[in-house]
Amino acid sequence: MREVAIIGVGMTKFGELWDQGIRDIYAEAALKAMENAGVEKIDSMYVGAMSGGLYAYQEHLSSVMADYIGQKGVPSARVESACASGGTAIRAAFMEVASGMSDIVLAGGVEKMWDVEDGTFVLATASDQEYEAYNGVTFPGLYAMMARAYMDKYNLTREELAAIPIKNHKHAVNNPNAQYPFELDLKGVLGSSMVADPLTLMDCSPITDGAAAVILCPLDLAHKFTKHPVKIKGIGAATGPIALHNHVDMTKLDAVRIAGERAYKMAKLKPLDISFVEVHDCFSIAEIIVLEELGFFKYGKAGKAIANGEATYGGKIVVNPSGGLKAKGHPVGATGVAQVIECYEQLTGKAGKRQVKNANYGMAQNMGGSGGSCVVHILEAV
Amino acid sequence: MREVAIIGVGMTKFGELWDQGIRDIYAEAALKAMENAGVEKIDSMYVGAMSGGLYAYQEHLSSVMADYIGQKGVPSARVESACASGGTAIRAAFMEVASGMSDIVLAGGVEKMWDVEDGTFVLATASDQEYEAYNGVTFPGLYAMMARAYMDKYNLTREELAAIPIKNHKHAVNNPNAQYPFELDLKGVLGSSMVADPLTLMDCSPITDGAAAVILCPLDLAHKFTKHPVKIKGIGAATGPIALHNHVDMTKLDAVRIAGERAYKMAKLKPLDISFVEVHDCFSIAEIIVLEELGFFKYGKAGKAIANGEATYGGKIVVNPSGGLKAKGHPVGATGVAQVIECYEQLTGKAGKRQVKNANYGMAQNMGGSGGSCVVHILEAV
Repeated sequence: MREVAIIGVGMTKFGELWDQGIRDIYAEAALKAMENAGVEKIDSMYVGAMSGGLYAYQEHLSSVMADYIGQKGVPSARVESACASGGTAIRAAFMEVASGMSDIVLAGGVEKMWDVEDGTFVLATASDQEYEAYNGVTFPGLYAMMARAYMDKYNLTREELAAIPIKNHKHAVNNPNAQYPFELDLKGVLGSSMVADPLTLMDCSPITDGAAAVILCPLDLAHKFTKHPVKIKGIGAATGPIALHNHVDMTKLDAVRIAGERAYKMAKLKPLDISFVEVHDCFSIAEIIVLEELGFFKYGKAGKAIANGEATYGGKIVVNPSGGLKAKGHPVGATGVAQVIECYEQLTGKAGKRQVKNANYGMAQNMGGSGGSCVVHILEAV
Repeated sequence: MREVAIIGVGMTKFGELWDQGIRDIYAEAALKAMENAGVEKIDSMYVGAMSGGLYAYQEHLSSVMADYIGQKGVPSARVESACASGGTAIRAAFMEVASGMSDIVLAGGVEKMWDVEDGTFVLATASDQEYEAYNGVTFPGLYAMMARAYMDKYNLTREELAAIPIKNHKHAVNNPNAQYPFELDLKGVLGSSMVADPLTLMDCSPITDGAAAVILCPLDLAHKFTKHPVKIKGIGAATGPIALHNHVDMTKLDAVRIAGERAYKMAKLKPLDISFVEVHDCFSIAEIIVLEELGFFKYGKAGKAIANGEATYGGKIVVNPSGGLKAKGHPVGATGVAQVIECYEQLTGKAGKRQVKNANYGMAQNMGGSGGSCVVHILEAV
């Protein structure tokens, strides 16, 4: 298996992009990544998108995007694993390069969510439709049940839970691509509209338009393109139960633990080696459970640790320096790619005011549904 | 790059499967393939599906299907390239095995098309939505324009065009999984309802429910599982213009030619080496153009050759021994996988009354849209 590196990255601003269509924003990110890598021609490409069909009435994004970025002729595939579609696109591109099938491969992710009326219904198609969505449970409700179970089991307070969006909004202030780069206080979280008890609006990641893209190539070619390649050192992917009612324990996310173990094993690293991590904080409770499943905190401890400042600059590990899904925004198909871009920028010293000092290894954790799927990447500047 | 073989196959009957949901039929095909290969545990899997969102209101089929076939925990991804989603799933699984990332990989395809009212609208999301579907052109109209252009350029008669569905229905009579295993005569084609002049209903592939799956592993492990592995000797994938109006010549399909050239190059073979081919006859005219782009007939000659019996048993090359999309059925995400299964059965001598004699190499050609994407596989029994 050939070793693989990232040689260029590009993304749009995340937010409400009313002036652009889905193909415009994918193309913007893809062309920025190609320019950043110094390549005019790619050998193959991927489009990570959760629901071209329901969000844009456009399937076949593989062909649309290859054509629209001027690379018509190249092999192209859309990959999807709900909100983990972006991470899945990078994993697919990794294997295409690793296998020797192609050298220069574009992995992009995109979602245009503001153009439809009922974005929450579309997102609910990532749950177990026949048992969950059909009966009226959408994702805020599913994660609210997880939050309630966790708070009961580990005596986490509502105020401690609020520490997650507060931290992530603080980080996003320094991210020029963030959808909501403003600070948030406890009153702002607790006083926002109730969505699904105990989760208020400020516990929930937003509806976002956006795209992100990276260029991969074999590690032994990477220095021809850039002085600062970032190696993909470990990848882990896993599935879990599609339905929350099939979780043995609602305070756990098995797919995250398994994907993390696979990534650590491939990278020959342990949680203590990781300098910072971008995690999938689709809801505040998710960040807590994910950090525990990835081994950064013991079960029951992550929530209080975040509230104690251990997950920000100067703490044990910087979690979501980008602002996370909550504050940077969550265009679902793009999120996994944007997480890896944050890792790339941190590891190459390009993160500006968000820079994590002495960062050796970064991790990106991207998740679909209520833990139905997960992809973890571990990255290293080389 | 490791060599890769198919060690087991499984599929549902194609047709109107009112008693089963999308997860039931994928599981049926996947479990049959696993049983056929003699494996109880897979390392990774793919789900090729065009529109889980619009056909079943269920995205995240990666997780749903891994869970539902009892393989929860494995990495899983859905891949999509419209009607070429099945071929794309096999290509992705191939690269996962070839790279060394996984050994036993399931590649399945599925579509449940009868459960929604407006299947033609859903299919139209595989066209250039903003320019074609939005303005009222769906696929029968697009292929009708291609047919008209071809008939004018090469003096193909309406009666000659009808030879394609007549041949494919004759082949399907011997296929127990075919949706429409009955013979069709010239009167039956010409007298069926006009859909988009010159194409009548019998020029158009049907709406179909169905699933198909194959198990891949490294070639050097294949004989541990079966006496009759089939090697994937060549793969070619390519994109073309998403919109028909961007084809330089409406009687050509560039993506098919490029994908074919790539597959021949990888396999080190030429058209004359191929014993039979499963092609993407979504409309009768498609079979003609595809056969020319793959080098089996010169430009302008394939239509008349088929009418002269050169594309059936005893002719130059057997085309669509399974009955093709027209008569076997076309559950879009499953089609590319089912084509490869036909190749597997032919090459291992299991095709019963459809058996092509002395078959050395088989080809499967799977296409998305009006040539927006294409995947070609060349297979060999080893």
